Amino acid sequence: MTAAPVPRAEGSPAAADQAATPATTQGMTSTEVTVGVLGAGNVGSALIELIDAHGDDIETRTGLRLRVVRVAVRSMSKERGVALDPAIVTTDAAEVVADPAVDLVVELMGGIEPARELIVAALNAGKPVVTANKELLANVGSELADVAEANGVDLLYEAAVVAGIPFIRPLRESLVGEPISRIMGIVNGTTNYILSQMDTEGVSYGDALASAQSLGYAERDPTADVEGLDAAAKAAIMASIAFGVRVVAGDVANEGISKVSAADISFARRLGYTIKLLAICERFDDGSVAARVHPAMVPIEHPLAGVRDSYNAVFVEGDVVGNLMFYGRGAGGGPTASAVLGDVIDAASNLSRGTHASVGHLAKAKLRSVDDLASPYYVNVEVRDRPGVLAAVASVFGDHGVSIRSMEQEGLGDDARIVFITHESTERDVQACLSDLKRLEAVDRVASVLRVISE
Amino acid sequence: MTAAPVPRAEGSPAAADQAATPATTQGMTSTEVTVGVLGAGNVGSALIELIDAHGDDIETRTGLRLRVVRVAVRSMSKERGVALDPAIVTTDAAEVVADPAVDLVVELMGGIEPARELIVAALNAGKPVVTANKELLANVGSELADVAEANGVDLLYEAAVVAGIPFIRPLRESLVGEPISRIMGIVNGTTNYILSQMDTEGVSYGDALASAQSLGYAERDPTADVEGLDAAAKAAIMASIAFGVRVVAGDVANEGISKVSAADISFARRLGYTIKLLAICERFDDGSVAARVHPAMVPIEHPLAGVRDSYNAVFVEGDVVGNLMFYGRGAGGGPTASAVLGDVIDAASNLSRGTHASVGHLAKAKLRSVDDLASPYYVNVEVRDRPGVLAAVASVFGDHGVSIRSMEQEGLGDDARIVFITHESTERDVQACLSDLKRLEAVDRVASVLRVISE
Repeated sequence: MTAAPVPRAEGSPAAADQAATPATTQGMTSTEVTVGVLGAGNVGSALIELIDAHGDDIETRTGLRLRVVRVAVRSMSKERGVALDPAIVTTDAAEVVADPAVDLVVELMGGIEPARELIVAALNAGKPVVTANKELLANVGSELADVAEANGVDLLYEAAVVAGIPFIRPLRESLVGEPISRIMGIVNGTTNYILSQMDTEGVSYGDALASAQSLGYAERDPTADVEGLDAAAKAAIMASIAFGVRVVAGDVANEGISKVSAADISFARRLGYTIKLLAICERFDDGSVAARVHPAMVPIEHPLAGVRDSYNAVFVEGDVVGNLMFYGRGAGGGPTASAVLGDVIDAASNLSRGTHASVGHLAKAKLRSVDDLASPYYVNVEVRDRPGVLAAVASVFGDHGVSIRSMEQEGLGDDARIVFITHESTERDVQACLSDLKRLEAVDRVASVLRVISE
Repeated sequence: MTAAPVPRAEGSPAAADQAATPATTQGMTSTEVTVGVLGAGNVGSALIELIDAHGDDIETRTGLRLRVVRVAVRSMSKERGVALDPAIVTTDAAEVVADPAVDLVVELMGGIEPARELIVAALNAGKPVVTANKELLANVGSELADVAEANGVDLLYEAAVVAGIPFIRPLRESLVGEPISRIMGIVNGTTNYILSQMDTEGVSYGDALASAQSLGYAERDPTADVEGLDAAAKAAIMASIAFGVRVVAGDVANEGISKVSAADISFARRLGYTIKLLAICERFDDGSVAARVHPAMVPIEHPLAGVRDSYNAVFVEGDVVGNLMFYGRGAGGGPTASAVLGDVIDAASNLSRGTHASVGHLAKAKLRSVDDLASPYYVNVEVRDRPGVLAAVASVFGDHGVSIRSMEQEGLGDDARIVFITHESTERDVQACLSDLKRLEAVDRVASVLRVISE
């Protein structure tokens, strides 16, 4: 390893800290690990403050003295949350990565380039890397993992999926021997806040989005959140780790929440469900896997139904362990920095012991097409209110082998709305059914279609 | 290390498995780690089956070939869930520990002796130990940790607190740098099932207990569960890891659920709460800590309120990461074996790399007395229904500086029941208040007192 950390000299500040707490360090010799941070935004600033504020505790508990020695920023002038010694700040990220004084690199710049090449350079220099960059991992994560493996160093990214919620490590370590069949995650706080507002306040999608924007939960351009792109990237990362195969963002079928109406929310509630945007990763008996993101009706008794506002949660179904759920803040400077710090300590400790967390190479995934995925469906159809309409509509479902579990009809003046919940049906059959429904003269429109989570 | 694992010979069965899945093992040389299991009950049998069924997957993902080479049982004759090769079974546990063919020891016998001395012998022989023995850990855990540390081997016990729910590892690794202020856990499935039944079915404590016993959720002698002893042991383990200090079962103040009445449950519901048995571990600004177990009123919107039936969950409050919750099955052969397997893989991987998870020595805890702990309280008093009673009762609260947040009165024939929710008050003040209340001539009895969780 080129970046071997140096044991602390006697009488160094940390040795003193240590002497102050002999009971807890038991004369363990402390090791200094120097950190280079790329990006000093919310998360980077929070991380630097955290290491500063809790460095002594961390040394007491782990025997590691973390020191941030270099920080790369986009602009020297920009105001930031933490006071940085000008001597350690630079706008040249490559310089931080190459600096022999840096043992470990934390990448918090986001985006694919130059993050990718900087991480590769760090790994090739034998420096462990901690990143929270989901876009990068969801696109070239397995290539980066191979580079880390080849260099025998860590590439850790606990913060990339649900920020502060410990999930990647439990999945990679605690559950490595567990056959996982399905993961369902509420992994985007913005959309969960919007859907919660629509549910509890009865407001429209537009008003809820506006409130999310005013609170800073949603960007001025909310596309990445509301269209499910952010969740899709996270689904790719979760599927890759849970199933040990390479799934990239492009493999994830996704659908956002912008078409979810107040009417859908209230029907859902009446039928005993709540609507959530879910990232769903499944493995089937034939070894194929599927990852998708879409709004879904979740039974009100399901643990995911109670995850409100901007909270996140990931529900894991294991064959042996049963159902697990990990809940917490999936975004924000503090929670994200906390997860990054956990990885930094882990990587630093591995580095000081000359080892690393081996993830193994990911095989190509055998992907199952969305058309072949099955679930119950919620279908909301607006029709002319006249005799025989229900029979006509119902027969179309029958023609496509989509059987109906329950039905509700409500009048809308001369028109009527019929809401169906089907039994388990494939996407292919439901889509065929829908296109025939639209052709029915008595059908004004198919107002909405949502998948239903069966318990 | 005396128990250095041997790299697999070329052309060995596993090397063949590996060749069958080159993409995922990338020619990683596989290492065989031999396991000795002490105890072949539900968990032991499930573990042995799990290793048998998923050994190839595990090898593909981790490069480790686990092999159970010795199993110690209480009786050779006893029927068990898994078929064991008689050649590897013995009733002499010490022989398994001492066997040079055993690299790693899994202790699933329970109880303090002989488990303690067997574990010490294994650790002193340089063999990592995985255990699910909460009684042992809650009493001599820090001594055992010191022995592991001195020998540079792992002592892992993910399964000891909430079985299959990954919690100890996230706490020890992901959150090692996180300042945790409070942990509240529903860590006993039996009592949670009983309280859930009382809440949803409106049955009495006795009937709910009987139903738990008939389903096998509760022992014929349910004392350890219903009186909170099981939860207290788990609280000691959680506090020790979360706060890095030595807390033993004897340090945990505990109170069970046998006094919780149907009336309390319905009052709680009416007031917007549900009653749960909680294990609460807190750290205060002066560095002191407290661990206690008691039934508590949990606000219905709190994530813990939705944890029903025999499910467990641990709610963690971190200063930086915010609120986290870990949810799942906290008992049962499968879930427990799954957690044990995660530890076995972790310990085997550390062993094969000549490293171990360092936990550091635990300092003596500065314990805060229960008398000094504060929370809102629920107090249910039965009084003569006559003018002036409320004033008399209320003045007693006032005398002790226990201020009342809300009050409800209901008639009971000639008597009446008054239910109070107080503002935050210390146990000391509340107890003094209660003893004075009991002296009031108009007070028949104090029917119940419960702490209330403030959000």
